[in-house]
Amino acid sequence: MNGPNLNLLGRREPGVYGSEGMDSVLKGLRQEFPDVEIEYFQSNHEGALIERLHATWDEPEVIGIAFNAGAYTHTSVALRDAIAAIPAPVVEVHISNVHTREEFRRHSMIAAVCKGVVAGFGVDSYSLAVRGLLKAVVE
Amino acid sequence: MNGPNLNLLGRREPGVYGSEGMDSVLKGLRQEFPDVEIEYFQSNHEGALIERLHATWDEPEVIGIAFNAGAYTHTSVALRDAIAAIPAPVVEVHISNVHTREEFRRHSMIAAVCKGVVAGFGVDSYSLAVRGLLKAVVE
Amino acid sequence: MNGPNLNLLGRREPGVYGSEGMDSVLKGLRQEFPDVEIEYFQSNHEGALIERLHATWDEPEVIGIAFNAGAYTHTSVALRDAIAAIPAPVVEVHISNVHTREEFRRHSMIAAVCKGVVAGFGVDSYSLAVRGLLKAVVE
Amino acid sequence: MNGPNLNLLGRREPGVYGSEGMDSVLKGLRQEFPDVEIEYFQSNHEGALIERLHATWDEPEVIGIAFNAGAYTHTSVALRDAIAAIPAPVVEVHISNVHTREEFRRHSMIAAVCKGVVAGFGVDSYSLAVRGLLKAVVE
Amino acid sequence: MNGPNLNLLGRREPGVYGSEGMDSVLKGLRQEFPDVEIEYFQSNHEGALIERLHATWDEPEVIGIAFNAGAYTHTSVALRDAIAAIPAPVVEVHISNVHTREEFRRHSMIAAVCKGVVAGFGVDSYSLAVRGLLKAVVE
Amino acid sequence: MNGPNLNLLGRREPGVYGSEGMDSVLKGLRQEFPDVEIEYFQSNHEGALIERLHATWDEPEVIGIAFNAGAYTHTSVALRDAIAAIPAPVVEVHISNVHTREEFRRHSMIAAVCKGVVAGFGVDSYSLAVRGLLKAVVE
Amino acid sequence: MNGPNLNLLGRREPGVYGSEGMDSVLKGLRQEFPDVEIEYFQSNHEGALIERLHATWDEPEVIGIAFNAGAYTHTSVALRDAIAAIPAPVVEVHISNVHTREEFRRHSMIAAVCKGVVAGFGVDSYSLAVRGLLKAVVE
Amino acid sequence: MNGPNLNLLGRREPGVYGSEGMDSVLKGLRQEFPDVEIEYFQSNHEGALIERLHATWDEPEVIGIAFNAGAYTHTSVALRDAIAAIPAPVVEVHISNVHTREEFRRHSMIAAVCKGVVAGFGVDSYSLAVRGLLKAVVE
Amino acid sequence: MNGPNLNLLGRREPGVYGSEGMDSVLKGLRQEFPDVEIEYFQSNHEGALIERLHATWDEPEVIGIAFNAGAYTHTSVALRDAIAAIPAPVVEVHISNVHTREEFRRHSMIAAVCKGVVAGFGVDSYSLAVRGLLKAVVE
Amino acid sequence: MNGPNLNLLGRREPGVYGSEGMDSVLKGLRQEFPDVEIEYFQSNHEGALIERLHATWDEPEVIGIAFNAGAYTHTSVALRDAIAAIPAPVVEVHISNVHTREEFRRHSMIAAVCKGVVAGFGVDSYSLAVRGLLKAVVE
Amino acid sequence: MNGPNLNLLGRREPGVYGSEGMDSVLKGLRQEFPDVEIEYFQSNHEGALIERLHATWDEPEVIGIAFNAGAYTHTSVALRDAIAAIPAPVVEVHISNVHTREEFRRHSMIAAVCKGVVAGFGVDSYSLAVRGLLKAVVE
Amino acid sequence: MNGPNLNLLGRREPGVYGSEGMDSVLKGLRQEFPDVEIEYFQSNHEGALIERLHATWDEPEVIGIAFNAGAYTHTSVALRDAIAAIPAPVVEVHISNVHTREEFRRHSMIAAVCKGVVAGFGVDSYSLAVRGLLKAVVE
Repeated sequence: MNGPNLNLLGRREPGVYGSEGMDSVLKGLRQEFPDVEIEYFQSNHEGALIERLHATWDEPEVIGIAFNAGAYTHTSVALRDAIAAIPAPVVEVHISNVHTREEFRRHSMIAAVCKGVVAGFGVDSYSLAVRGLLKAVVE
Repeated sequence: MNGPNLNLLGRREPGVYGSEGMDSVLKGLRQEFPDVEIEYFQSNHEGALIERLHATWDEPEVIGIAFNAGAYTHTSVALRDAIAAIPAPVVEVHISNVHTREEFRRHSMIAAVCKGVVAGFGVDSYSLAVRGLLKAVVE
Repeated sequence: MNGPNLNLLGRREPGVYGSEGMDSVLKGLRQEFPDVEIEYFQSNHEGALIERLHATWDEPEVIGIAFNAGAYTHTSVALRDAIAAIPAPVVEVHISNVHTREEFRRHSMIAAVCKGVVAGFGVDSYSLAVRGLLKAVVE
Repeated sequence: MNGPNLNLLGRREPGVYGSEGMDSVLKGLRQEFPDVEIEYFQSNHEGALIERLHATWDEPEVIGIAFNAGAYTHTSVALRDAIAAIPAPVVEVHISNVHTREEFRRHSMIAAVCKGVVAGFGVDSYSLAVRGLLKAVVE
Repeated sequence: MNGPNLNLLGRREPGVYGSEGMDSVLKGLRQEFPDVEIEYFQSNHEGALIERLHATWDEPEVIGIAFNAGAYTHTSVALRDAIAAIPAPVVEVHISNVHTREEFRRHSMIAAVCKGVVAGFGVDSYSLAVRGLLKAVVE
Repeated sequence: MNGPNLNLLGRREPGVYGSEGMDSVLKGLRQEFPDVEIEYFQSNHEGALIERLHATWDEPEVIGIAFNAGAYTHTSVALRDAIAAIPAPVVEVHISNVHTREEFRRHSMIAAVCKGVVAGFGVDSYSLAVRGLLKAVVE
Repeated sequence: MNGPNLNLLGRREPGVYGSEGMDSVLKGLRQEFPDVEIEYFQSNHEGALIERLHATWDEPEVIGIAFNAGAYTHTSVALRDAIAAIPAPVVEVHISNVHTREEFRRHSMIAAVCKGVVAGFGVDSYSLAVRGLLKAVVE
Repeated sequence: MNGPNLNLLGRREPGVYGSEGMDSVLKGLRQEFPDVEIEYFQSNHEGALIERLHATWDEPEVIGIAFNAGAYTHTSVALRDAIAAIPAPVVEVHISNVHTREEFRRHSMIAAVCKGVVAGFGVDSYSLAVRGLLKAVVE
Repeated sequence: MNGPNLNLLGRREPGVYGSEGMDSVLKGLRQEFPDVEIEYFQSNHEGALIERLHATWDEPEVIGIAFNAGAYTHTSVALRDAIAAIPAPVVEVHISNVHTREEFRRHSMIAAVCKGVVAGFGVDSYSLAVRGLLKAVVE
Repeated sequence: MNGPNLNLLGRREPGVYGSEGMDSVLKGLRQEFPDVEIEYFQSNHEGALIERLHATWDEPEVIGIAFNAGAYTHTSVALRDAIAAIPAPVVEVHISNVHTREEFRRHSMIAAVCKGVVAGFGVDSYSLAVRGLLKAVVE
Repeated sequence: MNGPNLNLLGRREPGVYGSEGMDSVLKGLRQEFPDVEIEYFQSNHEGALIERLHATWDEPEVIGIAFNAGAYTHTSVALRDAIAAIPAPVVEVHISNVHTREEFRRHSMIAAVCKGVVAGFGVDSYSLAVRGLLKAVVE
Repeated sequence: MNGPNLNLLGRREPGVYGSEGMDSVLKGLRQEFPDVEIEYFQSNHEGALIERLHATWDEPEVIGIAFNAGAYTHTSVALRDAIAAIPAPVVEVHISNVHTREEFRRHSMIAAVCKGVVAGFGVDSYSLAVRGLLKAVVE
C-alpha cells in the first residue's frame, strides 16, 4: 500500500526517490516472491487508505501489509487507529532514509502500532518488508 | 456524527470501545428520545465530515450535533473551522476516557469551538450528549 | 461535590457561570432523579475535599461522585491520588467549556483517574454526570 | 485553488472573511487580468487538492497557482510534498492576517516549498498573488 | 493579607526577608496611613485565604487588598479565581525581588487578575501597595 | 510526618503501597530505635503540614524529620519554603519508587531544600530515613 | 521603509536578495504607481525606524507603509509597539521567502500588528505591498 | 527614564496607557516630591538609554532611577548589563499590568538586576517607584 | 556488529528480545547468505565499537555493516561521527520495535548517517539488513 | 559499585563529597554489616560497569547492588539496560543531594529500573542502601 | 570592535571583566603585532556597529575583525546579517567564559556566521583572536 | 588531548577537518612553542580520557590542557566532572566552527568547567589554545 504523492514515483524528485516507477517495482516483487499474491493499492485520500485497511477484516488471506504511508506517516492519528484495529500485521516502509530529511519527518505517528520499520533502501525497502512479513508468518 | 474508524464499532478493540455496534446504539437513542429525529452520518474522510457539517447551513431543523470525531479530534484544524462556521451547536463525544490513553489524545483541536464535551461513559456518551443538547435548546 | 470558589455560584462572573445558585441546581437534580439520594459537599480546602472522598470508603451506598473540582482540577495531584484510592467512580464536571478559556485550564490532573468528563452544559453538566453514573451502575 | 471551508466564503464568519463570495472574487480577477485564463478549484478533501496539483504535471500552460489551503496550511505534510513535486510555482494565499489569530495558525507547513506568501488583504490577496506570479514569469 | 510561611516574618531567612516582624510592619503602615483602617489576615491554608477574599463580597468598605500570597503566588489557580471573583482590587506584593531567585518564582498565577504588582522594596512593598490602591481609589 | 492520602496506608492500592498500616510501621520504628522519641503527624491539609513544620522552631529537641509529603512533593512551593525556613533537617521519604510511575511524579519541589532522599524500600524507607538522620546528628 | 542591512541591497548576497539596488526598485515603483507619492526611508538603527513611524502621526497624507524590517522583524518588540501606536496601516514585506531560511526567521514579532504580509517575490514584493495598500484604501 | 514609544504617552492607545502625557506626570511627581530633583530622559534608541545609564557613574547625586524600559524590557540584554554595571539602584516601572497582555510581555530581561518592580498603577507607578527608592535610601 | 548488553541475547528479557542467542542467529545468517563472509563483533564499550568501525578504513572487502548499537543508538554522538567517517555503508538494526517502548528510545543519534533502518522483526532484522546491503551493492 | 570519578573520593571537591576515601567507607561498611560479604568495584569505563553488572548473572550469591553511577546516572541508557537485564536488585546511591546541584543532575536515567534511591547522606548513603537491600531480602 | 557596555571595561564588575581598560589592551595588541595596523571601534548602538561592519566593504585592507559584541551577541539578528554580508572574516570574542554565566548567555546569534570563537582568556582573548585571523590569512 | 574519532584526523571528512594529520600538527606546535613540553594523548574511550585527566593530579608540571573532546563534548557529564575535579586548567578546542553544524553540536557539557573555548581556526585552534594557557600562567 502506498500513501499520498507516491503515484508520482519515478517522476517526482528522482534525486530523492529514484527513477523507477511503481509498476516496475511491483513486477520485481512478484518475480522475487512468486509464491505470494501481491496486491497494490495507492491513494492520496487518508479516508480511502483507512477503508482499504478496514477491508482486510474480511480478507483472512492477507498475511501482512507493507505500507508506505508517505506524508501521512507523520500526521495521521486516524491511520494509526486503523492499523491498530485490524488483525493483519503492518510494516512501515520508506524509500528514502527519513532521518536525513526535515525534522518533522523524523517522527512517525504509526510506527508504534506497526510490527516493524524498513527505511532507506530505495525501492528495495518494499522487498525487505515483504520478506520480513513472510519470515514472521513462518515462525 | 462519527469520524474515522468508528464504522468498526463493536468489532475493533472491544476492550476499549465495548462490543455494542452503532446500529444498536442508534436504536437505543431513538427509544430514549422518541420525540427527536436522530440522523446518523459516519465517514472516514475528513472532507466528507466537513461537508456534512456545512450542509447544516441549509437544515434549520438541526438543533445540535453529537460528534465523535475519532482520531481527527486531535489533528484537524479543518474540522475545527467547519464547526466554527456553522450555526448549530456541536458536542464533542468520546466513548473511552481519552485522558487515560496516549498523551497525544489528551489534546483536542475542536473542543474550543464546541459547546461542550462528554467522554468516558462508553456508548452512553452519545445519549448524554443528545440530552445535553436538548436541555440547552429548551433554555 | 464542588471545589474552590463554587460557593459563589450565581454571584461570581455570571457571564461565565450563569446566575443560578447551587441550591437551585440541587433542587432541580433531586426533582430529576427522585429515586436517588443526592448529597452535596463544597469546600475551598483541598484537604477537606480529600477527606470527603476518603469517607466514601465507609459509605458503600455511594454509587458515584459528580465532582467539579474547580481550580484544583488543574493543579492537585493530591486529589488525583484520593480519587484513585477510593472505590466509587468519579465524574469530572465543569459548568463552562474549559477549552475556551486560559491555556492552563485545558489540562486536567484528575481526568485520567476519573470515569469520564462532562463539560460546557452550564449547570446541566451536573445532571448529565449523575445520569451517566446511573447508566454505568445499571450496566 | 482553495482548501477546506472556503466554499462557505461570503457566508462564514463575515467579520473575519468578508461578505464577498468566491464567484464575485473570480469575476473581479478575470476583469483585472483579461489576458490570463484563470481556473478555479475548491475542495474540502486533502486528497482531491493533492490530485489537482498533480494534474499540473500534464498542464504545461499552468504558469502558477494561487493557493489558499485554508486549515490544511497548518497541518498537511502531504500537500507540502505535492507542491514540492510539481514544476509550477505556488503562492500561499490567506484572506485574513493569520498572525492575529490562534497560535497554531502562525505556522505554515507549506510556505517553505512555495514561491512566496500573500496574507491579510482580504479577497485582494488573490489578486496580489496572481500579479506576483505574472511578474515572476515575465522576468 | 499574607499567605503561607509569612507568619515567620522576621524569624525566617533574615538575609532574604529582613528582620522586621509583621507587627512592626503593620504599626508602621497605620502610622503612615492614619485615615485608613488596615486589617490584617494571614493563613498558611489556601482555602482560608480564598474564604477571606470571598468575605469581601459583603464588605463594601474594603477599597483594596495588598496581598502577598507567598508561595501560593506561583501555584494557585484557586486563589486566582477567588481574586477574579471579588469586586475589590488586589495588588500583588512581594518583599524580595522574586526575579533574582529560583526560576519557578518568576511566574505568577495571580498577576493577570490583580490590579498591579509591587516587589523588591522589603517590607516597604506593603506601604507602596497601600498607597497605590489609595491613589487608584481617588481617581 | 506524612502528607495527603497517607492516612489510607494499608487500605489504598496495596499493590503499590503494601498492606501494612502506619500504626504497625510506627511500632516497628520505635522498636528499631528505642532510644529515640518518634512523634507522628499526618494531615491532608497543606496548611496543617506547614504549621507542623513551623512548630519545630520552638522544639529544639527535634533532631530531624522524615517527611513523606505524598502528592504535595510534586506541587507545593509552600512546603518547600516551610522546610527551608526551619532549622531541623528534613529527609524526603517515599514508599514506592516514584521514578517508575507517572512522569509528573519524577519532579520534586522539596528535594532541593531537604538533606536527602530515600525512596522505593516500601515502609522500610521510613526506617532508613530515621537512621540517616541519626547518623548525620552523630557526625 | 527598510530596516537594517538593506542599504546593501544589490551588493549583499545576490543569490538571496537579487542584484537590483533600491534606487532601481524605487524608480520602478514610481513608474508603476505614477499617482502616488512614494517616500523612502532606510536605517540600521531600531530607534530611527521607530521615530520615522512616529512621525506619521503628523502626516495624515500617509496612506500606508510598506515596511521591510529586515532582521528586526524577528526580534523587535519596540517596532511592534510603534506600528501598533500609529494610525497608518503597515504591510510587512520580505524580498526572500523567509520560510526557506533559518528557523528563527520563520517567526515575526510585527506581523500580528500589521495589516498583511507579502514575501518571496524578490523586489516585486514592494510593488505588491504598495498595490495592496492602495486597494485597501479604495475600499 | 523612559524607553521606546513612551514619547507618545497620552496620544498612543489611551485605553491601555491613559490620556495623561509625560509632562503632566513629571509636574505631578515634582509636586509630590518637592525635595527631590527629578530629571527626565526618554529615548527610542537602545544605545542612548545605555549611555544615559552609564553617565550615572559620574553622577554620585543620583540616588536611584525609575526606569520604564518599554518594549526593551523584554528583549534587551544590553540594558540588563548596563543596569548591572552602574552603582545607582534601578526600579522597573510599567504603566499597564504587563501580565494581562501578550505572553512575551510577561518576561523581563532586566528585573533580575533591578532593585524592584512597580507595575499596573497607571502613571502613578512612577510615583510609587520614586517613593520606594526614597524609602530605600533612608534605610 | 552489536552494542551494549547484546552479549546477553537469549538470556535477557526474552519477552522483548526472544530466546534465540546470537550464535544461533549468526549460524542462520551464514546459511542464508553462503556467498558472503559474515564477521561478528560485540562490545559493551563505546570506544571499542568506534575503533572496530575505524578499522574498516583498511578493510576494503567490507561491503557493509549491520549495526545494532543497542542503548548507544540513543545517546552516542561519537558513534555517529565514526559511522560518518568510514566509507562502508551502515544499516541501523533493532530486534524489537523501538517505537513501542520508552519515549527516549524513539530518537536515534545515528540514523541520519546510516544508509537505512530495519527494526521490529526480531532476530530476522539482521537478515533483512544484510540482504538490503547486498541489494544496494549489486545496484 | 562506583562509577566515573569516584576513584578520586576524598581528594576531589571535599566541600561537595567529603574528605573520607572509599577505603575508609568500605571498612566502615564491613564493620557495620559483619555478616555480609561486601565486594567493591569501581570503573570510569561505562562498558566495564556494564560487564560487572552482567557478571552477576552467574553469581547467585549477590543479593543486591548499591550503585553510585556518578555522572553516568544522568546519561547512560546502556547502564539502564544492564540493570534491567540482571536479576539482582540495584539501589541508586548518591553522596551529595543531587537536587541542589545543576539542573541536568536532577534527572536519572537509571532510577526507573532500580529498586530505590538513597541520596544526600554523605558516605552514609552507602550504609543506608546496603541496609535497605538487606531488609528487602529478609521480607 | 566592541559592543555595548564595553566602554566601561576596567570600571565595570572587575571580578568578571578584570581591571584593565581597553586603552591598555590596545597598546598591548599593537606591541604584540607590530606589523599589523589595529583600528578600534566601540559603540553601544546596534545600528552603529552594523554600519561599521558595512564600511569594510570599501576597505579591502581589512583582513579580519575581532568582534566582542557583548550583550548583542545573544540577541542581534541584524548584526548576524551584517557579518554574513561583508567579505572580511569575523571572530567572536568574549573576555569571560560566557558558559559559566546565565543560561541566556550560552546562545550566540552570530557564531554561525563567524569564522571562529575565542572566549574566557580575559583580555588575552583579543590577542588570540587577532593571531588566529593572521594565521588564517597566511594559509 | 583529543577525544573520539580524532585519530582519523587528516583522513576523515577533509572538507570539514582539513587534510593535515595530528603528527604534523604536533610537530608544528613543538616548533611554535620550543620552551614547552607538549604531550599528546588520544582515546576513543570516555573512561580512558577521564583517567588521563585524573593522572594530572600527580603531575604538578602540567600547566594546562588543550582538550578537543570531539563528540564527547556534547554528551559527557563524566568528562565534565573529571575536568572540574583536577587542578590544571582545561581549554575546550574545536577544529571546525561547531556552530555551523548540527544543532546538537551547539551545546557543550564541558565549557562551563573549562577556562575558555577556542573554535573554528582549523588545526590552528590547538596553537591558540596553548598560547592562551601560557598567557594565563604568566599572569
